[in-house]
Amino acid sequence: MPAAAPPAAYRARPIGVFDSGVGGLTVLHELLVQLPHEDFVYLGDTARFPYGERSASELERFCVEIAEELLARSVKLLVVACNTATSAALPALRRRMMETTLGVDVLAVVRPEAVGAVAATRSGRIGLLATPATVESGAYAEALAAVDPHVTLVPVACPDLAPIIQSGFPFDDDVVETVRGYVAPLRAAQVDTVILGCTHYPLIRPMLQRMLGRGVEIVTSGAALARQVQHALSARELGNPRTEGEGDYRFLCTGDVDAFRASGTRFLQLPLGDVEHVALPAGAAA
Amino acid sequence: MPAAAPPAAYRARPIGVFDSGVGGLTVLHELLVQLPHEDFVYLGDTARFPYGERSASELERFCVEIAEELLARSVKLLVVACNTATSAALPALRRRMMETTLGVDVLAVVRPEAVGAVAATRSGRIGLLATPATVESGAYAEALAAVDPHVTLVPVACPDLAPIIQSGFPFDDDVVETVRGYVAPLRAAQVDTVILGCTHYPLIRPMLQRMLGRGVEIVTSGAALARQVQHALSARELGNPRTEGEGDYRFLCTGDVDAFRASGTRFLQLPLGDVEHVALPAGAAA
Repeated sequence: MPAAAPPAAYRARPIGVFDSGVGGLTVLHELLVQLPHEDFVYLGDTARFPYGERSASELERFCVEIAEELLARSVKLLVVACNTATSAALPALRRRMMETTLGVDVLAVVRPEAVGAVAATRSGRIGLLATPATVESGAYAEALAAVDPHVTLVPVACPDLAPIIQSGFPFDDDVVETVRGYVAPLRAAQVDTVILGCTHYPLIRPMLQRMLGRGVEIVTSGAALARQVQHALSARELGNPRTEGEGDYRFLCTGDVDAFRASGTRFLQLPLGDVEHVALPAGAAA
Repeated sequence: MPAAAPPAAYRARPIGVFDSGVGGLTVLHELLVQLPHEDFVYLGDTARFPYGERSASELERFCVEIAEELLARSVKLLVVACNTATSAALPALRRRMMETTLGVDVLAVVRPEAVGAVAATRSGRIGLLATPATVESGAYAEALAAVDPHVTLVPVACPDLAPIIQSGFPFDDDVVETVRGYVAPLRAAQVDTVILGCTHYPLIRPMLQRMLGRGVEIVTSGAALARQVQHALSARELGNPRTEGEGDYRFLCTGDVDAFRASGTRFLQLPLGDVEHVALPAGAAA
């Protein structure tokens, strides 16, 4: 006998999404466009940004703290929109969330992009643009091998790309030349699909598409993850029962609220609305 | 016997694109992404913006002046990225351009979107968001009827939308409510395809997609036109002979160069580069 569907009040709960900063807002952007009936609450751990240099045990602790905060706000599903957190803390996070009364699923970046890239490629040659830490972690290579061991990954570490994008539009000729340098090995390797393995990169997607040529498919974390979130909602019968209008979305951040709002709008590409400060770990000084 | 292909030097010429202001840059954006090997020169007639209240004979004169300016800069193809100019001046413009030695084709908005929408719709119910002037002109209704007389058009005049978008990001709750008001009749009519009949509107595409729901296909002038430009280049054997790297693009404007640069970057979503002032009619005071 199949389990009863969760009650409407439970299905009406928001989906929690988090990242170390504003990059994950490009993931939230896709979720908002693809799943307009759902409510979302996004947490940016900007006070402890960037996560790149943190130890694995520190990251586990941060992620569990964030998960607790989002659980306290009654999320029905948790989305990790951060590559570093996914690599370091996903197993710990999944264990913690399965201990909750109803068992909250944790979805994360990396595997969805691997699935999307394998589905998109015809030549089997897939490029990856990511931070040095993400490339070194081998997370995408592993995820791709698990999905299809016969594709070839061409990874390019882009040390300057996330900082350039973080620092803001408009981009000058130096930026174009820097990006061109990262794209060159992908062109040389004749990949037909490119994973953007950092949530900042969708902001320069038009420039990348132009340099790669229109025959190359670009796979973003947001688009790939939105599909898996949809599958999870429908498998668990967790879709929001709303029948009219769009859902709400709101923001929490651990650092400066005004700074979050200023750069957040550029990453979300939708009106930002309310941003609330939260202290993590709970009870810490603001 | 087929005509000989044009010489490489002719094929290496830029494509001319023009609009009354910066809105046409959303069309150029798509052309740059879809046709990365081509060179472009864009003219924004910002000194005489907006075109909405101009008479048809005035608009014919403006468009021919712009076309002469772009011909003097050796364009091989002319793209009218302006709804008002297309409605008022396309026949006159085509006559003038066919008088040139080699016969320069003129492509324009409206018909490509009609083709794109008819190709996309399954229900045959197509929505249109456009300025009051464009809706009243009946240009989209006519173009759709010519492509497929059995589709139904649901036009919505949006008097406030272009000014809101022109005035800049970020958008507040009032903007969201205004946009929601324009989308409501399209939702009520259950259209499955929506034409953005104004080149400003792609800047709020994510918001529109979210309000319409992901099952609704949005057709923009830029995407639809890029395909037809590609067909024209290949039918005329006019594709740029470049084999490596992307083409150049540059900008002319009849008004203030700094103002063009400031809002232009937001509409192009790519680095803007050089903007040169031109006086129109040729020889007029700056």
